[in-house]
Amino acid sequence: MFGDMFARGAVAGETGEQAWLRAMLDAESALVHALVRVGLAATEDAEAVEAARRDGRVDAEAAARRAADSANPVVPLVRELTRAVEGAAARHVHQGATSQDVMDTAAVLVARRAGGAVLAEADRAACALAGLAEEHRRTVMPGRTLLQQALPTTFGLAAAGWLHAVTGAADALRTELDRAPAQFGGAAGTLASLGDRGPAVAAAFADRLGLARPALPWHTDRGPLTAVASAAARTAAACGKVAGDLVLLAQTEVGEVAEAAGPGVGGSSAMPHKRNPVAAVSARACAEQVPGLAATLLTAQIHQPHQRAAGAWQAEWQAFDRLLCATGSAAAWTADALERLEVDPERMRANLEMTGGLAMAERVSSDLAPELGRLDAHDLVQEACREAAESGADLAEVLGRRLAGRRTPERIRELLDPAAYLGAADAFIDAALDAYRTRPEGPG
Amino acid sequence: MFGDMFARGAVAGETGEQAWLRAMLDAESALVHALVRVGLAATEDAEAVEAARRDGRVDAEAAARRAADSANPVVPLVRELTRAVEGAAARHVHQGATSQDVMDTAAVLVARRAGGAVLAEADRAACALAGLAEEHRRTVMPGRTLLQQALPTTFGLAAAGWLHAVTGAADALRTELDRAPAQFGGAAGTLASLGDRGPAVAAAFADRLGLARPALPWHTDRGPLTAVASAAARTAAACGKVAGDLVLLAQTEVGEVAEAAGPGVGGSSAMPHKRNPVAAVSARACAEQVPGLAATLLTAQIHQPHQRAAGAWQAEWQAFDRLLCATGSAAAWTADALERLEVDPERMRANLEMTGGLAMAERVSSDLAPELGRLDAHDLVQEACREAAESGADLAEVLGRRLAGRRTPERIRELLDPAAYLGAADAFIDAALDAYRTRPEGPG
Amino acid sequence: MFGDMFARGAVAGETGEQAWLRAMLDAESALVHALVRVGLAATEDAEAVEAARRDGRVDAEAAARRAADSANPVVPLVRELTRAVEGAAARHVHQGATSQDVMDTAAVLVARRAGGAVLAEADRAACALAGLAEEHRRTVMPGRTLLQQALPTTFGLAAAGWLHAVTGAADALRTELDRAPAQFGGAAGTLASLGDRGPAVAAAFADRLGLARPALPWHTDRGPLTAVASAAARTAAACGKVAGDLVLLAQTEVGEVAEAAGPGVGGSSAMPHKRNPVAAVSARACAEQVPGLAATLLTAQIHQPHQRAAGAWQAEWQAFDRLLCATGSAAAWTADALERLEVDPERMRANLEMTGGLAMAERVSSDLAPELGRLDAHDLVQEACREAAESGADLAEVLGRRLAGRRTPERIRELLDPAAYLGAADAFIDAALDAYRTRPEGPG
Amino acid sequence: MFGDMFARGAVAGETGEQAWLRAMLDAESALVHALVRVGLAATEDAEAVEAARRDGRVDAEAAARRAADSANPVVPLVRELTRAVEGAAARHVHQGATSQDVMDTAAVLVARRAGGAVLAEADRAACALAGLAEEHRRTVMPGRTLLQQALPTTFGLAAAGWLHAVTGAADALRTELDRAPAQFGGAAGTLASLGDRGPAVAAAFADRLGLARPALPWHTDRGPLTAVASAAARTAAACGKVAGDLVLLAQTEVGEVAEAAGPGVGGSSAMPHKRNPVAAVSARACAEQVPGLAATLLTAQIHQPHQRAAGAWQAEWQAFDRLLCATGSAAAWTADALERLEVDPERMRANLEMTGGLAMAERVSSDLAPELGRLDAHDLVQEACREAAESGADLAEVLGRRLAGRRTPERIRELLDPAAYLGAADAFIDAALDAYRTRPEGPG
Repeated sequence: MFGDMFARGAVAGETGEQAWLRAMLDAESALVHALVRVGLAATEDAEAVEAARRDGRVDAEAAARRAADSANPVVPLVRELTRAVEGAAARHVHQGATSQDVMDTAAVLVARRAGGAVLAEADRAACALAGLAEEHRRTVMPGRTLLQQALPTTFGLAAAGWLHAVTGAADALRTELDRAPAQFGGAAGTLASLGDRGPAVAAAFADRLGLARPALPWHTDRGPLTAVASAAARTAAACGKVAGDLVLLAQTEVGEVAEAAGPGVGGSSAMPHKRNPVAAVSARACAEQVPGLAATLLTAQIHQPHQRAAGAWQAEWQAFDRLLCATGSAAAWTADALERLEVDPERMRANLEMTGGLAMAERVSSDLAPELGRLDAHDLVQEACREAAESGADLAEVLGRRLAGRRTPERIRELLDPAAYLGAADAFIDAALDAYRTRPEGPG
Repeated sequence: MFGDMFARGAVAGETGEQAWLRAMLDAESALVHALVRVGLAATEDAEAVEAARRDGRVDAEAAARRAADSANPVVPLVRELTRAVEGAAARHVHQGATSQDVMDTAAVLVARRAGGAVLAEADRAACALAGLAEEHRRTVMPGRTLLQQALPTTFGLAAAGWLHAVTGAADALRTELDRAPAQFGGAAGTLASLGDRGPAVAAAFADRLGLARPALPWHTDRGPLTAVASAAARTAAACGKVAGDLVLLAQTEVGEVAEAAGPGVGGSSAMPHKRNPVAAVSARACAEQVPGLAATLLTAQIHQPHQRAAGAWQAEWQAFDRLLCATGSAAAWTADALERLEVDPERMRANLEMTGGLAMAERVSSDLAPELGRLDAHDLVQEACREAAESGADLAEVLGRRLAGRRTPERIRELLDPAAYLGAADAFIDAALDAYRTRPEGPG
Repeated sequence: MFGDMFARGAVAGETGEQAWLRAMLDAESALVHALVRVGLAATEDAEAVEAARRDGRVDAEAAARRAADSANPVVPLVRELTRAVEGAAARHVHQGATSQDVMDTAAVLVARRAGGAVLAEADRAACALAGLAEEHRRTVMPGRTLLQQALPTTFGLAAAGWLHAVTGAADALRTELDRAPAQFGGAAGTLASLGDRGPAVAAAFADRLGLARPALPWHTDRGPLTAVASAAARTAAACGKVAGDLVLLAQTEVGEVAEAAGPGVGGSSAMPHKRNPVAAVSARACAEQVPGLAATLLTAQIHQPHQRAAGAWQAEWQAFDRLLCATGSAAAWTADALERLEVDPERMRANLEMTGGLAMAERVSSDLAPELGRLDAHDLVQEACREAAESGADLAEVLGRRLAGRRTPERIRELLDPAAYLGAADAFIDAALDAYRTRPEGPG
Repeated sequence: MFGDMFARGAVAGETGEQAWLRAMLDAESALVHALVRVGLAATEDAEAVEAARRDGRVDAEAAARRAADSANPVVPLVRELTRAVEGAAARHVHQGATSQDVMDTAAVLVARRAGGAVLAEADRAACALAGLAEEHRRTVMPGRTLLQQALPTTFGLAAAGWLHAVTGAADALRTELDRAPAQFGGAAGTLASLGDRGPAVAAAFADRLGLARPALPWHTDRGPLTAVASAAARTAAACGKVAGDLVLLAQTEVGEVAEAAGPGVGGSSAMPHKRNPVAAVSARACAEQVPGLAATLLTAQIHQPHQRAAGAWQAEWQAFDRLLCATGSAAAWTADALERLEVDPERMRANLEMTGGLAMAERVSSDLAPELGRLDAHDLVQEACREAAESGADLAEVLGRRLAGRRTPERIRELLDPAAYLGAADAFIDAALDAYRTRPEGPG
């Protein structure tokens, strides 16, 4: 719906009905190749199936429109493919398989392809984040807890934290995608019609598709799919968190970042002056659709009676497809937002100074703790903060008076300098960049 | 995805991008008409807008594809409509409105139209259920709790219970659809650009669309939408419950109902003998997607900062659309399943007799309670049941022996006759049919 | 967990195991009274049951600890109550009923009592909001969309919008609470053991408890409960939205509101200067737990096979209890936040002026639209805004130059005055207050 | 609520407020030990903290009741602990830390401990399943798809499939538990008050608790927690699927398994004859609460602004605790159900024969495919099935007539023998048992 707002970037082409039908036909082709490998079909049979597809004789969409007759699209698709394949090869189409073998394998293929797109977009975001982390190592900004200014931090560390979350999630997704096996069990999970050749065909089938071999059929163990879905949801959330922070930092009153506007981008239908953080907002809109879809899959996982579910299995398809698409779109929008990000270090510094040193109160408190005890130090500084806030006086001055004899005015000024109070910020940036640069490469 | 499996029946045409764009243009048209009614525009202006649409000069889909630039489709749509409207009328397009006015009003229009389709399908299911309730008043079947046979009931009462649940949910949906107001608040909810004429335009706008007038703008009060969504979810669940029971009753080992197979309907790709309850399974598949979507909307309701949300609002569109579509599809499939239902009263009776009278144990227990006390009566009968089950003996005989002196064999046989132990089943069927027949008519 | 953070205010005493056990015993008592009313038991029997409870002879908690043996707490509770009731009256305990009758009726009683607490807290919030709406009619503040300043609005209108959302949700909850019926169907929904007296007992049972009479048993139609849950979720969300806005308005950089700190309230363990919006944060924490719980109930509604569910029904209890408790707590915290709210009108005005008139751009654009056309006017003003923003110049001045000949400097200043551009803000405040003051009174 | 119905087995003692407070104090103790290790505190300081706890001077519960004042329980707990620690050691309590460090580390500790209990219960279930898989290798039963009998399978293979799903999920959970790091970032994630010693303290802190070292603070990257939650949800679902199958197999009309009743176990309050599958029903009730709780956590993951969330973080605590508890309870109940399972191989065989050979139709169809083509073979057999079903005739006989000249009656009988048509069932059982026996040991 609505152009590429909810199907953004590389994932758009790897989800949706077309992608599923392609994956289903890939599974059917691979099965005939697998039969060839174990000697149950001839090379010509596999060629005949490929030829039928290549020559455009398989009208998969027309077949899919008849899915409702059998509560799954495989039944009409197999009928269509069998019709399109010429000669004796037709009898090897779908041999030994059941609808769920093809649907589940297609789901894994779609997950691998769409997941690859998710990872590519997440990598694009990560690349932008690594750049920001490095570039803004020394850009002091307010750290905020409960949306109140707390201690100073750096924008570089904020970016490093986002980076670590996004790559952590993406790595988890990559792992689950690599692990997701092909499905092959036949009508009731025994591969009965293949006699004792079932496991060999299953292995050849998985190999042909480049998927993990299943130890045994997992028709009603939806764990491999929910593991992918959960890792995708984590990825979407990591992106949504970044986007949410960008929206907050872009607030008119905060103004620490903005999305660079392009022609026609970010305007409002009624308010000509606005520069909306469109990409970040869209990333949120995508990410916020994911938990509900994940819940649908986690619920379906429970309701899979016996050897095939009567509703719960079929309920997965759209939810899984939408979840992958929304996740990839969230990642793509987040990458867009980051790539067009304008950072305003002066505004960050100015915001930090708004509180006249209040954000540095913890440091004073820590400095006093050894001689006063933590609680008394905390209370003394809290009192000073209150006085400064209420009287409008400078905190340094109030503290100077209250700490006369304990600390010199110079020491107090020093204690209140944010750039001198960044602790391990740099070390943490290094840790995040190291983890980013040394993680394993490669497709999901 | 996959033909009409997940977009079944009347709701298919009232959801999806086309339906939304139509509703958005309806809202824009109605706005100009409203401006005419309060004297801010001329009749010709409204006619010019209608003409632009009628003559096919508005390429809404092309416009919608640019939604991503502004994180909503209204900005490009207004631009396109303004372009298409000739002459001075163009300046009244979208006058006083903001994107959210148009999107939210469109959401309500889509809800009304798709909701009307949901109600029509639910009514079709209800009509079939009322027929079954009447026809099977005397069809004794096992009542089952925790999937164990409990006491006898009738299939008529089961149908009456389903009927009451479906119509109760549909009535709630109808109420919320009637109540959902148009949205009109302008850029920040004050209708500032209309001076003091804002409320009058808002009222005329709602009237023109046949929607409830808003007391005040509800841009960040998503209650009207979540109320519709919750009532829809209740409707989907009521249908899903019916479908689930049908699937259970159609089990090979139970066999009390079946869906009549038609040509090409209900077959299996691998198992020629199967007659799958395809419609009921599909109803479940649709219904089980709804709670996750409802959760997305309930969550979005919280995250609507200030005068317009930065993500949570935009996250509603697809979820709301899919929820309406899945609900209508669940209702349509349930109606299909009921209309093609074959009921087997003999199998119901035979299943009831499987337990050799055990299902009637409560009656014996109740009959003895006044003289033995409830707990002792319960324990005595439980013992007898255990003996009968373990020895394979007839329960009547075991009880005859254990109750010698207390009850005659004839009385025991009478106590164990299920058809004589149906309590208020008939009265409850009447109550459900009365409620069904006397409820208010009319569209949602 | 953690004191009254998640079980705040009046709802704390009406949820949790104690509240459920009390409600279950109330249901059992009411049943014996109902039997008396229809002549199936004697007045003395009802008195004997009351006496057993009054004299502390019923150890409900000990009984409840044995719930696991039968997968519900009613079985051991009935056994305990029967034991405690002296003499012949014992045989009327639970007569005609099944466990689900007692649990479901208890759920409705808990909903009514806890729901009453929710409504009381929501009313407290509403009362505070009505006061703010009235008091801050003229308090101009920035309206914000996508967290960017848009047009001016008033804090009074913001409060009025919150008020309307909270009372709209609370009214919906009240309606569903009033509508929720007692449950009484016996072992399989036929009330078989009561012969033809079942419906009369059911009616007397409901009357005794002050609950709606059920048209027929609703053991597997969970609609009455999910309707309550959905309305509660709407209430929690309406409160969560208020709290979320307060948190945003309380940001250090925005500073338009604050929660008055009390002794020990709102401090931080590490940062002595912070004044956290503790009540609003807690309201959010409660509200955000609700959608997931509601989803559990909406899902359970589907999975209720036959005459009693094998898992889905039992899964409702905790989720329903927690949902009511979290909703009431969200309302209580929101009321607390509002009652201790400090509003800073000067900061609101100052924030509005931060943009140097940019927020008024729409007005200039509207003013020019009749002569330039909406799109051209929009583009001209957007250009001026961009110039002002980039050059740091005053928008009035830039516009003065660009509109020379079209508008005088005075007219431009006038157009840029936010207090003169509030449209229907006052009328909407009146509408919200009217709706609040004239709504039906009374407990849920 | 309700005894150990929803807090069953080992997990009961590792969740809930007590478990959290214990973990929070463990974190505070470990912090002082870590300070000792890097030389910021003296051994006596750590001893003083231990002594305060050991001597019962810390009233954690009283402190936790004041959590509402600061929207988290750490603030009052630290105050209480500091008060209880004697002498100069008090100043090292909570040194360098912020509330979230303690809460998040406590969450990980609770996850590890409760997760260990989950794994122990899952192992108990797995052990029972491995036994069933081995014992019932030759127990032929109907495979069922869409709840219709499909092809034969063995109960051993069903058990092997359950085993593989449960252990796959448990292994994923174990991995995530091992990976979950301690949290230590100080007030804004920089560990500013520890100067350049922050990372060293963080490492020592994690080591002391036996948790993974964090690369950098993850205060707003909830990935480590949602990874645990998702793996737990997968475990709960795998158990719920087993329990659901047991409930279906225990149906009166199916009767293939039963839970052995003990004294007071499985009875019904009204129906003395029932033997309810109480453990399996309870397992479902627990498992079905999990997806909604997981959705709460996946949603909270998105809404974590800046350096600490204002609501979303606090919303995690109860949901995470309940999710762990429900998962462990689902596993415990599933293990209970399996340990008390009575399997009825004769009933399985009898059910398979109910269809007079229809379940073997696929085999005949496969046997004919090479000579007739798959579709024609399928259609021929479907016709024969239909004739047999409608006429009540024996399928072997109908096929004998229709296949005269193609197959002998002996061959047809052979084709219809289920025990000869189990394909790879044995191989798959071996694969599941191998995977179970060779997986890595050890605690989560």
